[in-house]
Amino acid sequence: MNKKGLAILMRTRMKPNSPVNPTKFPISLATTNKMLPNSEGKEPTKQISAEDEDPDFDQKLKAPVNPKRLFELVRERMHSAISMNKTEIQDTVLSDFSEGYYGLSSEDRCKLLMVLGKDYDLNRTHVHDLMKQYLGLQLPGDKGEIGDEDDSSLSTFYRTEKNLRHALQPTYEVLFDRLNTHPGGLKFLSVLRADILSTIREHNTPSLRALDSYLKEKLITWLSPAALELHRITWNDPASLLEKIVAYEAVHPISSLLDLKRRLGVGRRCFGYLHPAIPGEPLIFIEVALLKDVAQTIQEVLWDDPPILECDATCALFYSISSSQPGLTGINLGKFLIKRVIELVKQDMPQICTFATLSPIPGFMRWLISKLALQSKLAEADTLERSCSSKETAGSAFREDVLTTEEESQVLDKLGVSTSRKNGIEVILELLKSPNHEWSKSDEVLSVLKPILLRLCARYLLQEKKRGKALDAVANFHLQNGAMVESLNWMADRSEKGLSQSSGIMVNYIYRLDNIEGNAQSYFSSGRVSAASNLWRLVEQIQLAPR
Amino acid sequence: MNKKGLAILMRTRMKPNSPVNPTKFPISLATTNKMLPNSEGKEPTKQISAEDEDPDFDQKLKAPVNPKRLFELVRERMHSAISMNKTEIQDTVLSDFSEGYYGLSSEDRCKLLMVLGKDYDLNRTHVHDLMKQYLGLQLPGDKGEIGDEDDSSLSTFYRTEKNLRHALQPTYEVLFDRLNTHPGGLKFLSVLRADILSTIREHNTPSLRALDSYLKEKLITWLSPAALELHRITWNDPASLLEKIVAYEAVHPISSLLDLKRRLGVGRRCFGYLHPAIPGEPLIFIEVALLKDVAQTIQEVLWDDPPILECDATCALFYSISSSQPGLTGINLGKFLIKRVIELVKQDMPQICTFATLSPIPGFMRWLISKLALQSKLAEADTLERSCSSKETAGSAFREDVLTTEEESQVLDKLGVSTSRKNGIEVILELLKSPNHEWSKSDEVLSVLKPILLRLCARYLLQEKKRGKALDAVANFHLQNGAMVESLNWMADRSEKGLSQSSGIMVNYIYRLDNIEGNAQSYFSSGRVSAASNLWRLVEQIQLAPR
Repeated sequence: MNKKGLAILMRTRMKPNSPVNPTKFPISLATTNKMLPNSEGKEPTKQISAEDEDPDFDQKLKAPVNPKRLFELVRERMHSAISMNKTEIQDTVLSDFSEGYYGLSSEDRCKLLMVLGKDYDLNRTHVHDLMKQYLGLQLPGDKGEIGDEDDSSLSTFYRTEKNLRHALQPTYEVLFDRLNTHPGGLKFLSVLRADILSTIREHNTPSLRALDSYLKEKLITWLSPAALELHRITWNDPASLLEKIVAYEAVHPISSLLDLKRRLGVGRRCFGYLHPAIPGEPLIFIEVALLKDVAQTIQEVLWDDPPILECDATCALFYSISSSQPGLTGINLGKFLIKRVIELVKQDMPQICTFATLSPIPGFMRWLISKLALQSKLAEADTLERSCSSKETAGSAFREDVLTTEEESQVLDKLGVSTSRKNGIEVILELLKSPNHEWSKSDEVLSVLKPILLRLCARYLLQEKKRGKALDAVANFHLQNGAMVESLNWMADRSEKGLSQSSGIMVNYIYRLDNIEGNAQSYFSSGRVSAASNLWRLVEQIQLAPR
Repeated sequence: MNKKGLAILMRTRMKPNSPVNPTKFPISLATTNKMLPNSEGKEPTKQISAEDEDPDFDQKLKAPVNPKRLFELVRERMHSAISMNKTEIQDTVLSDFSEGYYGLSSEDRCKLLMVLGKDYDLNRTHVHDLMKQYLGLQLPGDKGEIGDEDDSSLSTFYRTEKNLRHALQPTYEVLFDRLNTHPGGLKFLSVLRADILSTIREHNTPSLRALDSYLKEKLITWLSPAALELHRITWNDPASLLEKIVAYEAVHPISSLLDLKRRLGVGRRCFGYLHPAIPGEPLIFIEVALLKDVAQTIQEVLWDDPPILECDATCALFYSISSSQPGLTGINLGKFLIKRVIELVKQDMPQICTFATLSPIPGFMRWLISKLALQSKLAEADTLERSCSSKETAGSAFREDVLTTEEESQVLDKLGVSTSRKNGIEVILELLKSPNHEWSKSDEVLSVLKPILLRLCARYLLQEKKRGKALDAVANFHLQNGAMVESLNWMADRSEKGLSQSSGIMVNYIYRLDNIEGNAQSYFSSGRVSAASNLWRLVEQIQLAPR
């Protein structure tokens, strides 16, 4: 399916079904300007009530709404949704707010979210008062000393702690909670978080970060695996669900209806996590191929006809895992999904004994090129400064040897002739940056680069870290789930995307049932990456070229 | 179905299916005494790991476990489940804990819960430190003043608030969170809360109340209506689900398989709320009869053959609503259930325009008898004191006139002859307390009592409050959901239970779609009960008998 076709297909995807007001325009224009906080920040006592609803709704529907007016209306509805008391949780206010929000431009959404983050956080005076009160209470001493449990002062103590816990919840919690129980609300909250994340990219303010972090915590609670249902997606599923698979497949795009049908057909499986509040839209889904052995190239997986009978398969290969909600970024649903899919496949087909992935390495080329460029620059500066003084220069501290002696000479001998470059790093840099990945079309270049890129790729996956975690996002995902790096596959993905991201290299991660917990634990506690011994040899026993 | 039969049927209901360790006994005896906090309260660094699992598990399974030893094992597993770090969330530890817990005696459960509440609440030193740090920070002033959002001190501010929020979460939150993501864990948490509630009945300590209140808040989040599925329960549902309906039907017990089949058959509906983590066990369910008019007696509802065709029905009568989880006490799922059932029925059968209940009045007789007894005592004391002094006595402040002049004389004239009682209250008291509800068998007695009991019942439902809410639990439930009291029905439930609870009176509450929100709101804010005008007349325009 081409991009334009898909865009047309998915055009309405941001608008959830609202069983409450499916047809009418959300906001009654008659109720404006009643409930915004006035300039002194005090909240008016006027609350929205059933009588405020405009009977001439449909009339107004036909009038076009001015964007500025719409913004004010949505802002007003947001305020009502937060400040209504408990029994007034009127579905109409929440529907008006969410439907109105969908109609806002992205600038207006951003403006509204900044208001939400700043004007509806904590009542800090209240928090301060409670804290002073709490600090004035007698702290129950060592646990052994709380003998007299009937003590009413102990009751006060617990009550104050509970009050503090509540006072430290931002005011916008009410909005999130109310939306969560509203039809379509959970989906809306996920859209809201996606918008918060993109607003932060423009305006990285502490209050927006706090808003994001709070909403993320709430979403994690609501999307607990206990509330999710594992669903095997098949060709019998509704088209409205299947179009989501086509739209959100992020790893190997689905090219046609036939392609989709094959991915759900014989020799394949597709599983998704569904939440009852977001029906017909898997939050995350995984595609599985049933094989004799672990596949080394994506071509072996994206077959037209299954290469073996399902009953002969001994390997379940996870070749794609995609999330449909940008608003759920940073919430690891995949971990639970993989675990449950392994259980389910094992139950269904006990002959399957290998659970592996064929995964992209999305960050490899970006890392490699910037590493090479930096070293090349440092070397240049170094040479320049050495010619001026005999002392070591400051830049030298960051210099490192990227290539081994042997690699250096191989590159210069076999590939250096056609360029004016003076060292191996510069030669490789020039080749990798060549337009249309020309380097990948010459057998000679490939034969020289293959061992070098494979070794550097192993180093990237096994040793390059950021805050103690693997630099590569996909690697980090599988490692924290308890997988190990099994093998690297040369020219396993020759697509434009594959060459750009990882010079065509793909990786197999393996989930060994007995080691999942152990691997995850040692990765988490010490950052140690579990990998096949030949990969470790590749990065540990090398002799680097002298500078 | 008799009680014994039901008990046999349900014997295993407390033991959830555990897909992890369905057969083996949970706790490996080899791992005892490794991880309890030592007497200084420090936590040992030894963590449970895969190697700790006992290979000779099945051997030990056969050995009987001493209850004291089992308690220590479960306590140890509870500690591990709380203190394991994030990547160690081993299913086995959680399964061991929950399965071991199911094996404990109720005394041991109670002991364990007291330990959980006291030893695993807050790290108060940490909370104090954070509070002092927070109070030392510059408070961002009025909202308008937070101009410089890049301010790193503002970041510190938000971060400290977040840290405080986390520090104020009790340690046992970890246990609840981990159990919630564990198969069977949500059901287990509901059992845990039921046990906490019954422990509190014996030992009402502040720490247990805090434990209960915290777990209740967590359960409310996890059982948000967004995570629940409305399921129409039919005769095609699995027997394992239907046995739950038989077991938990709390209002009108299901007498036989045929009775159950009829309740799911023509002219009837049954809907339940299911949570994906507790499959096959509705958390709450409601039974509906399709009628021409609102039924006034339960006999009209518990028919053998439907009195009308479904297509002729204009009234959906909710005649029973039952919750299956004692651990969810105080969590109002019924409110959302009724709302969604009304929507669904309306969609399915647009000709239905009345949504009503035929409800018991469980607290009426208890209230009436204690009120009459008190007044009778006060009157006696009053007479006695008056004969000694001419002043008004202290007791008089509590005296009130329960009967009207006319009622008083009616009772004395028509029913007083056979007794030695001096006033109407005492006559009524004696009648109501007569064994086997003898009073209900005499037409003469009934004709005198009917108007009196109906009037007092209206007063009970419309005016008697506790903390601003209707004293009667069922009344409070429907009123807060937005229903109104429509009519009282004399001798509508002549069963032993009906006569004991409410002298056979039943009540119709009505849900009028247009007034649901308004009723709920005015009940909540002012305590005003919405009721039919003739009921209000009954309690407002009366002339009480002079003392």
